[in-house]
Amino acid sequence: MLAPVRGFAKAEYYMRTQLAQTKMAKRGLSALLLTTEPEVRYYTGFLTRFWESPTRPWFVVVPAIGAPIAIIPSIGAHLMGQTWIKDIRTWQAPDYDNDGITLLAQTLREVTPSNGKIGLADEMESHVHMPLASLRAIEALLDGRVLIGDGGITRDLRLVKSEAEITKIHTAAKIADRAFNRVSEIACEGEPLSKIFRNFQALCLNEGADWVPYLAGAADRGGYNDVISPATDAPLLQGDVLMLDTGLIWDGYFCDFDRNFSVNKPNEVTQTAHSKLIDATQAAFELAKPGALISELFHTMNKVINPRGDTMEAGRLGHGLGMQLTEWPSIIARDHTVLFEGMVLTLEPSVNLMNGKILVHEENIVIRENGAEYLSEPQNDKMRIV
Amino acid sequence: MLAPVRGFAKAEYYMRTQLAQTKMAKRGLSALLLTTEPEVRYYTGFLTRFWESPTRPWFVVVPAIGAPIAIIPSIGAHLMGQTWIKDIRTWQAPDYDNDGITLLAQTLREVTPSNGKIGLADEMESHVHMPLASLRAIEALLDGRVLIGDGGITRDLRLVKSEAEITKIHTAAKIADRAFNRVSEIACEGEPLSKIFRNFQALCLNEGADWVPYLAGAADRGGYNDVISPATDAPLLQGDVLMLDTGLIWDGYFCDFDRNFSVNKPNEVTQTAHSKLIDATQAAFELAKPGALISELFHTMNKVINPRGDTMEAGRLGHGLGMQLTEWPSIIARDHTVLFEGMVLTLEPSVNLMNGKILVHEENIVIRENGAEYLSEPQNDKMRIV
Repeated sequence: MLAPVRGFAKAEYYMRTQLAQTKMAKRGLSALLLTTEPEVRYYTGFLTRFWESPTRPWFVVVPAIGAPIAIIPSIGAHLMGQTWIKDIRTWQAPDYDNDGITLLAQTLREVTPSNGKIGLADEMESHVHMPLASLRAIEALLDGRVLIGDGGITRDLRLVKSEAEITKIHTAAKIADRAFNRVSEIACEGEPLSKIFRNFQALCLNEGADWVPYLAGAADRGGYNDVISPATDAPLLQGDVLMLDTGLIWDGYFCDFDRNFSVNKPNEVTQTAHSKLIDATQAAFELAKPGALISELFHTMNKVINPRGDTMEAGRLGHGLGMQLTEWPSIIARDHTVLFEGMVLTLEPSVNLMNGKILVHEENIVIRENGAEYLSEPQNDKMRIV
Repeated sequence: MLAPVRGFAKAEYYMRTQLAQTKMAKRGLSALLLTTEPEVRYYTGFLTRFWESPTRPWFVVVPAIGAPIAIIPSIGAHLMGQTWIKDIRTWQAPDYDNDGITLLAQTLREVTPSNGKIGLADEMESHVHMPLASLRAIEALLDGRVLIGDGGITRDLRLVKSEAEITKIHTAAKIADRAFNRVSEIACEGEPLSKIFRNFQALCLNEGADWVPYLAGAADRGGYNDVISPATDAPLLQGDVLMLDTGLIWDGYFCDFDRNFSVNKPNEVTQTAHSKLIDATQAAFELAKPGALISELFHTMNKVINPRGDTMEAGRLGHGLGMQLTEWPSIIARDHTVLFEGMVLTLEPSVNLMNGKILVHEENIVIRENGAEYLSEPQNDKMRIV
């Protein structure tokens, strides 16, 4: 099998930009202002782990017509110069007196009319990735132009993935599948969870992950208390359920799914709960066709796992997936998004056990013309054993 | 040697909170609103990789008196319940209609007088980690109270590290030292850079890193073009300089330094440049005592590496280090911060080579009563060879 190709054809960025510009015109926006890593990368292809440093702000402006303009610290000029972006304006950051403010405001004034509306992501799952004082300073330099919410333009575009994007997510998922299939090499009774976490990440890298931004998990008697805690040094015990949930990256795209491992044979309650999770996932998978609603996926899973309508700490039963570990939308009753070919989702049901513990299962799927396809290799109802 | 202890004594969080409250009183602030991962963790101890998911906002309010209050999604209640925080208010997120807005506004109204000023970080290196529309909605519910910049209260507290914090950074640095000492196991002529990146991260994990949020680097003839690009599949060639710069984490604290490796013997220009970097680092190290200024560190290094005053793409010659890969302050001419016992810094000089390439070196230090101590094992002037 050939290794998948890194990067995207220039045409893909061009198309993303044109689609955004069509939506901008409909909303009366003269430009988009992008400030976060996934937004900047979506339109430019600028891929770097340097966002881990919070010091320097990075800006991209999508004008009404033409290619995006990068307004970035000079340290990023070489890398941005390797993308399809030609108009790259830099300053030597950090500049305590004016950290890109004048340069960005100038650019915005240059590409928009004096009464222009400039859209920026301001809704759920977004934030403005610059100091609030800088945002206010920029607003004051716009000479009549206003910054307003973009109405979810970029979020909605990112919701439907191209074939090239799906291939990257699939590649990430296959790497995680192979790592999960090797967990018995690193986990057994007596092994500290912290060491299992370290070794599982090394397995992911060994199987081809570029990096492993996310690993959560837990291990406790028959189930666990939460799914977001870091690992402790406590050893795995007989009867524990070990859960590992990884979001690893290949070429800038995530997978996000988990596997549960019983330390020796699971008890009947735990095995039954696990089977219920698989049933719920499979029920949603079968329903997940173009035209179905996210809320229908929710109700289908919820009927299986939660017939009494208990409180659900997790708040949702899955979500979008792609350039980020979790993306719009959330699989909740309130979300009536219509499924569309090319959407990538996680199905993530959880059950409350009698002892206050929980069990969570997760798979990754893509919506195709005639139904869903698994991107993760679907787990069967028998719990894995280490 | 005993393994260092995870977590902090409750007294440390108590002290951080009290110091903040003293500063708040001086500035006339009735509360602090915290929204980002390091801010929330600094006062509460809430440590999770779940911030990788952008969906749910997390809020902590530091009142004028008493312990912080957490206003968080219910999925985080169990983990927050294991910290010293007792007042934990949750909602089932994501809630499309009201994602914590009412709950947070209620809390802010409850703990502040009706004309209260509520501080939030709004300056360089910060951002407000919630949707802008949510921020505006919360402001509208404050009944006369105002959200204003916190004047850098949390930033300034974080600048000076406790012994326990220094131990964690030192532990991270020692892990990276051991991994760097094993690079010859994974890097040699012909090996693709992408594979070296994967294997180096596995070495870091193998040596004890909890996770590896940051790895950058490059490999090119005699130097490299930038230090933030992801790895390509191009093989290492004779005469290349391989640079690996890692920010790995132990118990929530980063180290951040790099090492340069020549593929076989370096040419004289490269070796001379490397020696200059070591000289610059050592000169700054010797100057780094309580009472010295950050700007003095800058000028001391700059005189060695950049006698002609060329443009410096990186924009700075080092920075603070701790809960984040890079923290306040930046080592630039404009920064006149006075060094203080307990500050942890990176010294990161870079040189422009004749061929347009650069070479960067980095060490981590802590300021002690009588001078600096290295937290990374200082590199000597001879380049490492693979």
